[in-house]
Amino acid sequence: MLAETLAAIRPADPVALAEARAHQDRLTKPRGSLGALEDVAIRLAGAAGASPPPMPEPAALAIFAADHGVHARGVTPWPQEVTVQMVANFLAGGAVANAFAVQAGVPVTVVDVGVAADLPDAPNLVKRKIGYGTADLSQGPAMTVDQAVRALEAGILVARDLVASGARCLITGDMGIANTTASAALISVFTGKDPAEVTGRGTGIDDETYEHKVDVVREAVRVNGLSGLSAGLSAPSEALRALAAVGGFEHAAIAGFILCGAAARVPVILDGVIAGAAALVAAALDPAAIDHCVAGHRSAEPGHAAALTHLGLRPLVDLELRLGEGTGGLLAHPLVCAAVRVLHDVATFDSAGVTEKPV
Amino acid sequence: MLAETLAAIRPADPVALAEARAHQDRLTKPRGSLGALEDVAIRLAGAAGASPPPMPEPAALAIFAADHGVHARGVTPWPQEVTVQMVANFLAGGAVANAFAVQAGVPVTVVDVGVAADLPDAPNLVKRKIGYGTADLSQGPAMTVDQAVRALEAGILVARDLVASGARCLITGDMGIANTTASAALISVFTGKDPAEVTGRGTGIDDETYEHKVDVVREAVRVNGLSGLSAGLSAPSEALRALAAVGGFEHAAIAGFILCGAAARVPVILDGVIAGAAALVAAALDPAAIDHCVAGHRSAEPGHAAALTHLGLRPLVDLELRLGEGTGGLLAHPLVCAAVRVLHDVATFDSAGVTEKPV
Repeated sequence: MLAETLAAIRPADPVALAEARAHQDRLTKPRGSLGALEDVAIRLAGAAGASPPPMPEPAALAIFAADHGVHARGVTPWPQEVTVQMVANFLAGGAVANAFAVQAGVPVTVVDVGVAADLPDAPNLVKRKIGYGTADLSQGPAMTVDQAVRALEAGILVARDLVASGARCLITGDMGIANTTASAALISVFTGKDPAEVTGRGTGIDDETYEHKVDVVREAVRVNGLSGLSAGLSAPSEALRALAAVGGFEHAAIAGFILCGAAARVPVILDGVIAGAAALVAAALDPAAIDHCVAGHRSAEPGHAAALTHLGLRPLVDLELRLGEGTGGLLAHPLVCAAVRVLHDVATFDSAGVTEKPV
Repeated sequence: MLAETLAAIRPADPVALAEARAHQDRLTKPRGSLGALEDVAIRLAGAAGASPPPMPEPAALAIFAADHGVHARGVTPWPQEVTVQMVANFLAGGAVANAFAVQAGVPVTVVDVGVAADLPDAPNLVKRKIGYGTADLSQGPAMTVDQAVRALEAGILVARDLVASGARCLITGDMGIANTTASAALISVFTGKDPAEVTGRGTGIDDETYEHKVDVVREAVRVNGLSGLSAGLSAPSEALRALAAVGGFEHAAIAGFILCGAAARVPVILDGVIAGAAALVAAALDPAAIDHCVAGHRSAEPGHAAALTHLGLRPLVDLELRLGEGTGGLLAHPLVCAAVRVLHDVATFDSAGVTEKPV
């Protein structure tokens, strides 16, 4: 299934890109006056292969939840059971992601790809558990390559189902205590940056825990033989090995979710640092996948900026959020819709009878 | 009417501020993890005098349109008739503000406070014309003080009608060829900054026109005897004189719109540099008015950042927009709603049975 998905991904269409750019310049506004939103609309035209691109509505949020063996190393003061407690909170509608989703009119699907507990059935819960949490990435591989591929495919299946149900925009979400540690390791490996540059304070940790977290990330990269590998990661087998070694089930699933969105030509709004790490994996498997992605926001985690720079994506919302769950992606969705709606609705100088600035 | 409006404005309620801050910290998220949105929700609780504050929905956008005598000085390559042409475009639904308003579900009202032409009646057009454009602010006062007060009151009446019709959030918009020149002059006078620091390229002008524009702004400040006055502008009569001297009818109207929103305890989302200049006027008349304002975005105009810093406001959207019309305010509205909805909808650690991080 992964191979078919990768085979279906097309890069941005240069004709649609050029058409959207030219149309943007005929609209009743000074050229360039919509700043970064003009680029979003043009990029999505390229991704869709049509100008204007389809409106990215309705959207759907998938929150991929999983646990992490590295939690045992004391990288966070939050107990591991908070993952399963927050899954219950999402299903009851009580989390921030739910509030933002109500505001944006976006339905929420929670996906268990590796929570360390059995979950009762619930209407919005999709069960695709690969394991009861990963192994400790600082001791050896967090997952087997087979597990990583199955987690990727779980994400592909979730995206496929959402698109089949009518979603025309996919938003990534995540939940997993300790998942900023795995994100930092992935980002270090895939960007070649030192762990100290890409490790952050996650939910908020003290200086001592932070120093320890950086050491754990460094250990993970070394123990798994991933130092200095970033240049070699364009080989899919190496990218999968790196993902399996230091990723989480939710990172793998989100990478698959991104790849499937790209294959379906449905834009994917990336949330924060976990999505950024997953997008690096997706990009290593097929760089064209990123043509279909929009960076919803820039989180306060330093690794996120590094990931976005590596991917060449500019974030839309920049408000020091560091919550995850898909919250930054949900906030960006109306901005993405507004950007695309300009190409659909706005009059041209000719059609509106507005005098254009003399060139 | 201005006096009654000013008398009705209350500063932020410290009890509601404290309640909102404390409640924010009990919600199922790491403390501070919503970054700047936490501050927005807390500020609006203070403004409303209630925690949680009412949801800022439905919103209403008012686009205040006017012309400027300083246009004759060649500060922009766009012909003056574009103001009236764009008013027609707004009324026909063809402008970017209309597209963003459709996306946000916000109705658009266009207010003629001083367009240099007679406009035909239209359902969404409110006629409150004070004059056929201002006089040239670089030769002497743009308006009489009486005109400035009447324009302020026009804005008050528009806000009052929108609130009476059910609006629970007001969004400022503007249209007026050459209005960034008046904005730069107002911002220079009210912040004490040099014209060169706060004058921008507006819709996009070449270097020569830009140099000339800075000179015109400098001349306006000098000719009207407003140099070095910023400290004295807390006297209402001096603030009104400065507004009349270098402002536009739309700046005055937007200042009134802000004051009325504040008096009605309905939050006002400020759009770009024109709203920023108008908010400086409102703040000089009553600093407490700013407690009721949210900075929707930061425009590419340098004067806007100076105005926001002076007002102590942090912008929500920062995407290099420089269009005006209310576009930045419209983009911010869903973010403001999301911020407030958190205080309404999100479960507490206790209520959701989520383990809190050990302190």
